[in-house]
Amino acid sequence: MKNPSDRIKALRAALATAGVEGFLIPRSDEHLGEYVPASGERLAWLTGFTGSAGLAIVLKDRAAIFTDGRYTTQVRAETDGALYEHRHLTEEPPEAWLREHAAGLKLGYDPWLHSETFLKRLTGLKLVPLSSNPIDAIWADRPAPPAAAVLPHGLELSGESAEAKREAAAASLRKSGEQACLLADAHSVAWLLNLRGADLSHTPMPLAFALLRDDASVRVFLHAPERVPEATRAHLGNRVSIEPRSALPRALAELADVSVRLDTELTPAWFATTLRQAGARVVAGEDPCRLPRATKNATEQQGARNAHHRDAVAMANFLAWFAAEAPKGGLTEVSAAEQLLYFRRRVPGFVAESFPAISGAGENGAIVHYRATAATDRPIRADECYLIDSGGQYPDGTTDITRTLWTGPGLAPAALRARYTAVLRGHIALATLHFPAGVAGPHLDAIARRPLWDAGLDYDHGTGHGVGSFLSVHEGPVAFSRAAKVVPIQPGMILSNEPGYYLPGHYGIRIENLLLARQAAAQPDQAKPFLEFETLTLAPYCRALLEPALMTQAERDWVNAYQARVLLEVGPQLEALVLDWMVRESARL
Amino acid sequence: MKNPSDRIKALRAALATAGVEGFLIPRSDEHLGEYVPASGERLAWLTGFTGSAGLAIVLKDRAAIFTDGRYTTQVRAETDGALYEHRHLTEEPPEAWLREHAAGLKLGYDPWLHSETFLKRLTGLKLVPLSSNPIDAIWADRPAPPAAAVLPHGLELSGESAEAKREAAAASLRKSGEQACLLADAHSVAWLLNLRGADLSHTPMPLAFALLRDDASVRVFLHAPERVPEATRAHLGNRVSIEPRSALPRALAELADVSVRLDTELTPAWFATTLRQAGARVVAGEDPCRLPRATKNATEQQGARNAHHRDAVAMANFLAWFAAEAPKGGLTEVSAAEQLLYFRRRVPGFVAESFPAISGAGENGAIVHYRATAATDRPIRADECYLIDSGGQYPDGTTDITRTLWTGPGLAPAALRARYTAVLRGHIALATLHFPAGVAGPHLDAIARRPLWDAGLDYDHGTGHGVGSFLSVHEGPVAFSRAAKVVPIQPGMILSNEPGYYLPGHYGIRIENLLLARQAAAQPDQAKPFLEFETLTLAPYCRALLEPALMTQAERDWVNAYQARVLLEVGPQLEALVLDWMVRESARL
Repeated sequence: MKNPSDRIKALRAALATAGVEGFLIPRSDEHLGEYVPASGERLAWLTGFTGSAGLAIVLKDRAAIFTDGRYTTQVRAETDGALYEHRHLTEEPPEAWLREHAAGLKLGYDPWLHSETFLKRLTGLKLVPLSSNPIDAIWADRPAPPAAAVLPHGLELSGESAEAKREAAAASLRKSGEQACLLADAHSVAWLLNLRGADLSHTPMPLAFALLRDDASVRVFLHAPERVPEATRAHLGNRVSIEPRSALPRALAELADVSVRLDTELTPAWFATTLRQAGARVVAGEDPCRLPRATKNATEQQGARNAHHRDAVAMANFLAWFAAEAPKGGLTEVSAAEQLLYFRRRVPGFVAESFPAISGAGENGAIVHYRATAATDRPIRADECYLIDSGGQYPDGTTDITRTLWTGPGLAPAALRARYTAVLRGHIALATLHFPAGVAGPHLDAIARRPLWDAGLDYDHGTGHGVGSFLSVHEGPVAFSRAAKVVPIQPGMILSNEPGYYLPGHYGIRIENLLLARQAAAQPDQAKPFLEFETLTLAPYCRALLEPALMTQAERDWVNAYQARVLLEVGPQLEALVLDWMVRESARL
Repeated sequence: MKNPSDRIKALRAALATAGVEGFLIPRSDEHLGEYVPASGERLAWLTGFTGSAGLAIVLKDRAAIFTDGRYTTQVRAETDGALYEHRHLTEEPPEAWLREHAAGLKLGYDPWLHSETFLKRLTGLKLVPLSSNPIDAIWADRPAPPAAAVLPHGLELSGESAEAKREAAAASLRKSGEQACLLADAHSVAWLLNLRGADLSHTPMPLAFALLRDDASVRVFLHAPERVPEATRAHLGNRVSIEPRSALPRALAELADVSVRLDTELTPAWFATTLRQAGARVVAGEDPCRLPRATKNATEQQGARNAHHRDAVAMANFLAWFAAEAPKGGLTEVSAAEQLLYFRRRVPGFVAESFPAISGAGENGAIVHYRATAATDRPIRADECYLIDSGGQYPDGTTDITRTLWTGPGLAPAALRARYTAVLRGHIALATLHFPAGVAGPHLDAIARRPLWDAGLDYDHGTGHGVGSFLSVHEGPVAFSRAAKVVPIQPGMILSNEPGYYLPGHYGIRIENLLLARQAAAQPDQAKPFLEFETLTLAPYCRALLEPALMTQAERDWVNAYQARVLLEVGPQLEALVLDWMVRESARL
């Protein structure tokens, strides 16, 4: 059963056996995170779609796959339009499609894979929770769930002991009158207990659930607890137990009359249902780890600076190599990404890429979250645009950088230079922003778009996302996005700054640095605290795509100062030829 | 009983008689609007505070008054700190104060004066709805409710017949499966039925409630229905009845088993309670008039242009007069505002000021919603800043304009000029914005603040509000404000653009024009519709406060082009001396 047509047929047969007339297949696994282990790639297995967000719905005689603006091109390339209608996840939401095509039908879903918040959107439909996932039954060669070692994240990296974090989270429960809190978000569990692991390829953490009590004790539930070594257990101490995932139902059954907070957006519906059946009082509330995790402490901030410094050497090596090789021809998207990974592997402390690198030449650059594979690999030709978005996981910090390059040897067309410059001007507008406390990401997204908007152009993704500390490269709750929650930006938060522009069928432009929010120095008559950003990422922009005449003097000054800083901070670590490239690339505008 | 101390004492006695230990006194009346008739000024009568938003809470032994950032200075000037603690309405919300000081106390409230949305914030407190308002019992000389004539708003002004509007609103009810809709917002009633009146000093409408049915019939409830003349009844037609307000309880009692939509934010809690008691199904939903009312049709748009053209003559006369008189001394805040009103009264069609003019010299300009009265009147001195925010109601449109002036004859200090210029640059940034469909006011507020933010400065009010068409000068649901709902801006919406800067104790700066949103011309590779603004307001900025060296060439060009347009469009209507002033004031930057 190798092709999507056989698989959807088998699924439909399994649904008939289960007594339902439809089934929802989300991208997420039981932790509802962005990245899933191979054993949780049900959507990709079924449909072929490998993007990081999506939902398929299979009915008896029709099916659809819903993805967002980042994946409109990719989903068409990866999935068969004869099997799946292609829909926009937010503009044509699945609930509308279901109300049109599945009213009155028995719709199966796996309660481990959807939040209550999502299921509430489907009110009026006949939803049937299934006790086992029908995909798992037909997925013959499904990989085993991950069971990598679980390791301590030392105080020299985390900056705050797990004990102190547990105590603070328990205090937040006591303050709001709850006795326990269920954490389904594995990032929160890893942050709270200062644990790291390797269950996912790009996010260094174990896939674990946790039950925190208001006395600061924690029960951790994960697959194969024997993989937690003695040193880690000692690090956790005797207030933290490690139990198999199979112990979860029993643990919840013990919570009769206990008030349990859970974040209904981040927790599979199974938990609330099971807790209510047990007689627990389920209180919808915020994951108490979410905001403190996003607000990096001084140790994590310094770690981020250090990690970016080291990562910058790999980027400089790559960019210099690319500048030398690309005009000759012979590179491909995959070989270029491999070369960058080769340079990153030489960086002290490098653990893994923080996400699969996006290496897109020409028209592939316009596919926002393109992933070059052996099947799609494309030569990188002379005189075209090339976009590389990549990052590294280091114990002291997570990096994420995008540069858009011109292969040469000819000059880039004026229209392309104008658009690259508009994107860069938006990127600078956000990087240099100075704003009062209380302002949130949704209020700032427009700042980075204005130079594009002026030309009637835009990009169909947020301007930036939060970034974890040796955790997920996409971390909530803050984001420079109109769709994000109104959470005020606070000193210590790390966000990406990545405006772009994509001309389908031609090229994609994106420029990304990470920013660290910090308190700004006071100015005359200032009546409240202001914040500003420190740019963490250190790499020159692309001189061949830049049109200084379209920038203001202040913008040129900023680029000059930034690139001088990169030279000063990264230059001494570079080999002569790479330094030579960097000096030329950073010539004053 | 003339002073606030006697009044609060009398209220406390009345509360004891009513068997409650506290009482909430909001600014709003039974229509929950911003402006209230004299008979509804309970908060001002009790406390002395005359601002447009606020809430007092009186307990047995303490009391507090809550106002927002616009009124922090004013509330201290108008109310006695020994009687009322001064609190910030949003930063120190009343629910927190109540939980601290009134837990367990029986708290009375008038269910006609609070929305359910507001009351929900007070959960956990012991709330007691009172059947009559204790203030009304002790307010001996309370004015009679207004009973001005109710007149038709003709098709040549409204651009759409009441019949068509009723049919569209009824269709929206049918679409969402409701059988009726309760409108407590008098603006919606006036808009829906193309009625205008004079129950309020500044908003030309009758204070009426309406019950719209899904068959497009409407029952209108208002005080003294005999004031609706025959011609108006003929205009309304036989599907619209006019009934006394006292008929409301009976009308609601007839709605058993009827599903009734109401906007829980805009409707007094009394309605939902009474409807539920009657056995009606109350459905929380949006006022169906709110969005169409905000989206002006072609007739209303042209009317707004015409009204602004005529209003511009009064403003030019005023500004020229002020430029001549102010350096001599002898003006006062009240006399200047009266002079402006004198000029407006000569404008064809002028009906009333669209709000009490804010005329603030020097430090009074820093009181955001300052109102000069005989008691506070202050000379306008030489060499200081003067802020005048005013507007007119005309049958074809509502205006609202703010200019900040320098009295001279000396030069304005450089620091003041720098700040005026920063405010103007923010104003220009918003006026020239070009943005894709789907973007809402909260996303754009920062655009106008950036030049101030760069200097560590800000203003504690939104950047702009919606404006009605011969209706309220402050009209929802759109606003350039972080606190506003996410409602995409659409062609036809009119919003103010009024950034400011206030240095308490010294001066206030605000610059305001009205903007009309419209579809923008397409540009190369544009993938979706874009919008832009047409500036409606026509008056030069203040040359003496402007520092061209702090502006970009594009900003100077914009001011030059705008002022040239004002000269061209308004100049021909001006007397020679006024035209002469305008030509000098508009000299190219």
